[in-house]
Amino acid sequence: MNVSFEPPRGMRDFYPEDMVWRNRVFDAFRAAGEAAGFEQYDSCVVESYDLLARKAGEEVGEQIYHFEDKSGRHIALRPEMTPTLARMVAQRQKELVFPLKWTTIAQCFRYERMTKGRKREHYQWNLDIIGEESAMAEVEVIGAACDALRRMGLADGDYKVHVSSRRFLGELLEKSGIAKERHAQVFLALDKRGKMPDAEIAAMLKDGGLGEAEIEAAFGIMDTSDCSACPELAELFRLAGIAGFADRLVFDISVVRGLSYYTGTVFECFDTAGEFRAIFGGGRYDSLLTTIGGEPTGAVGLGFGDVVVTELLKARLGENAAKGRKGVAVGFMFAGQADAALKLATRLRKEGKPVDLALRAQKPKKFFSRADSSGALEAVFVGPDDVEKGVARIKNLETREERETCL
Amino acid sequence: MNVSFEPPRGMRDFYPEDMVWRNRVFDAFRAAGEAAGFEQYDSCVVESYDLLARKAGEEVGEQIYHFEDKSGRHIALRPEMTPTLARMVAQRQKELVFPLKWTTIAQCFRYERMTKGRKREHYQWNLDIIGEESAMAEVEVIGAACDALRRMGLADGDYKVHVSSRRFLGELLEKSGIAKERHAQVFLALDKRGKMPDAEIAAMLKDGGLGEAEIEAAFGIMDTSDCSACPELAELFRLAGIAGFADRLVFDISVVRGLSYYTGTVFECFDTAGEFRAIFGGGRYDSLLTTIGGEPTGAVGLGFGDVVVTELLKARLGENAAKGRKGVAVGFMFAGQADAALKLATRLRKEGKPVDLALRAQKPKKFFSRADSSGALEAVFVGPDDVEKGVARIKNLETREERETCL
Repeated sequence: MNVSFEPPRGMRDFYPEDMVWRNRVFDAFRAAGEAAGFEQYDSCVVESYDLLARKAGEEVGEQIYHFEDKSGRHIALRPEMTPTLARMVAQRQKELVFPLKWTTIAQCFRYERMTKGRKREHYQWNLDIIGEESAMAEVEVIGAACDALRRMGLADGDYKVHVSSRRFLGELLEKSGIAKERHAQVFLALDKRGKMPDAEIAAMLKDGGLGEAEIEAAFGIMDTSDCSACPELAELFRLAGIAGFADRLVFDISVVRGLSYYTGTVFECFDTAGEFRAIFGGGRYDSLLTTIGGEPTGAVGLGFGDVVVTELLKARLGENAAKGRKGVAVGFMFAGQADAALKLATRLRKEGKPVDLALRAQKPKKFFSRADSSGALEAVFVGPDDVEKGVARIKNLETREERETCL
Repeated sequence: MNVSFEPPRGMRDFYPEDMVWRNRVFDAFRAAGEAAGFEQYDSCVVESYDLLARKAGEEVGEQIYHFEDKSGRHIALRPEMTPTLARMVAQRQKELVFPLKWTTIAQCFRYERMTKGRKREHYQWNLDIIGEESAMAEVEVIGAACDALRRMGLADGDYKVHVSSRRFLGELLEKSGIAKERHAQVFLALDKRGKMPDAEIAAMLKDGGLGEAEIEAAFGIMDTSDCSACPELAELFRLAGIAGFADRLVFDISVVRGLSYYTGTVFECFDTAGEFRAIFGGGRYDSLLTTIGGEPTGAVGLGFGDVVVTELLKARLGENAAKGRKGVAVGFMFAGQADAALKLATRLRKEGKPVDLALRAQKPKKFFSRADSSGALEAVFVGPDDVEKGVARIKNLETREERETCL
């Protein structure tokens, strides 16, 4: 009996042609993190359920894949990296030297309804600065994400980073008479704007205890387009000017973020054409460590998934953009030339060239066709005459030029 | 109430000092795979339980982390990559051009008793060649693994690859009168040699239906030290001579491998001093695809875990060997120099230098101490005089030399 050849529902296979894109994205993540002086960390995708459930709140809690191991431990596949980061920092809070600048690429799982291409797992690049209250932290984190987009091949005009401040929004809500204890509910509802009809959001606000006038005020605040009264955003714009990416920042009061732990600046990046979901998002979360028993500390975090940006890159650069020719394909005509081909492959590899060695004798046509489609830059096909002469020809598959090499 | 700051039992956290080692190992895996012309692939750590259980057999089946998702699907965390590879290849068997040379670094989970540092997850570098019957496949796979060890910093004399052949061992068993249908049991028992007392292995063989004389014969075969009668091993040694790593190959009949799917050549790599468990292992598994309903095809695979090799590297190279100085630390004395420091950091990053920018004003002593311990190669500390003059000094933390840069 056969089993299914498909991956489990919502999970992705990466064939070589998919890995080319994933590497382009991951390489940019790693290079941008390193350029901005972030240190790498990681942990296991299996996390304690208690840790995740404690922090998650809201929708995420219901979406966690969780189970008991063989000795009854309640474990789960993390839906995001932040609780794990908080745990790791809390574990060494006395030894670590703050501010920390940490980065990781973490696979995360959410059990979601499968709508329009949403998967149940994705990779999320995380950048976090822990132990810094000033807007320098926001600038470093957003600047590194912009640098990653540049390294992937996007133009500055391809995206905008929409910024706001929960603290500022809270101030505006309070001025409109909406009491602080209702803000968490209001944030959650306002985060749904654009994703569900305003009437449903109004109903959510009503359920949250707001009266007619307050609901109207909350919607009114969503028209705010001036953030000059918000010092943390003014400072962020000023510093982004020095760091060279102020042209990509826009104030947008409607950016609220779904998670409850944000306390100050929040941001989301969108493609300028507005075709895709958010590319990355994040914000300031000054009280996260205290929720798991650590000491309070100012922090800024950013999460940047691999799915949306890959769709965007394919749309902007073309499906074949990630391919690049490199390395040498080495083949041979008859079994009698296998040794010579292996010897040549060994020498070229010692010289630092990637070599795809054909493992068996082939007809030249078949060899060159495979070499071409596999993306080799050069190809050598060893025949009996070549072995006799001790010389083979290396053909450049782009320029069609040939040069000789000894065997 | 606080939650535990520890990772779940058997799972690892990677702090920045651990990531330095992991990157050294993973970078060598990727570079060696690319040099040998392997294409990268990947899949999700969550796999269908049916696929894993069908192929696993033996001990692995009991050690799988498995659970039901919210719609009752039976899913699991993969204990190894091979069933997933077989599934992915079977899914596209008509389109793919063989032989395939595929590689991945896959996190794998096994629920094991926690003995002497054994974890419940590890990363395993996989190299597989699918669709090639000749020993060229074994040579490419073992050669790439040796190349990875060299890239990590090990000397050729630090390890040996022990090779044998299950087919050859089966031939010897048959000649001793042990029937073919008992070979699977005998392989499983003989694989335990050195890991459990011979008396227990004898008992296993007895349970497998072998008589006294047959058990004695099986143990006798374990003294075989000549493989000249085995053509696939003779060819492997010959080709390894051409590829330049025959000095690291030894024939060792006791290498059997625990998994049932191997059919020909098998191999395991050990440190020469014999201090550690196997560094990597693998072999030929010509019938894997048929077990999940695909078409038969010759294949060779290698699995190379991250745990043992990292222990070995630390032992041979020293705990600090993975650290290397790079990048520039940029700091400033008073808040008034923050803008100048950010401007300088932005410029240095544009020049391609990784920059760790201090996010707040610091005393010079504290700044230089952190720059030094974080592994920066150079450091710039911006004070009020520097801003006035428009010039700061970049100090090389290794040579203590200084050079000037404009602000």
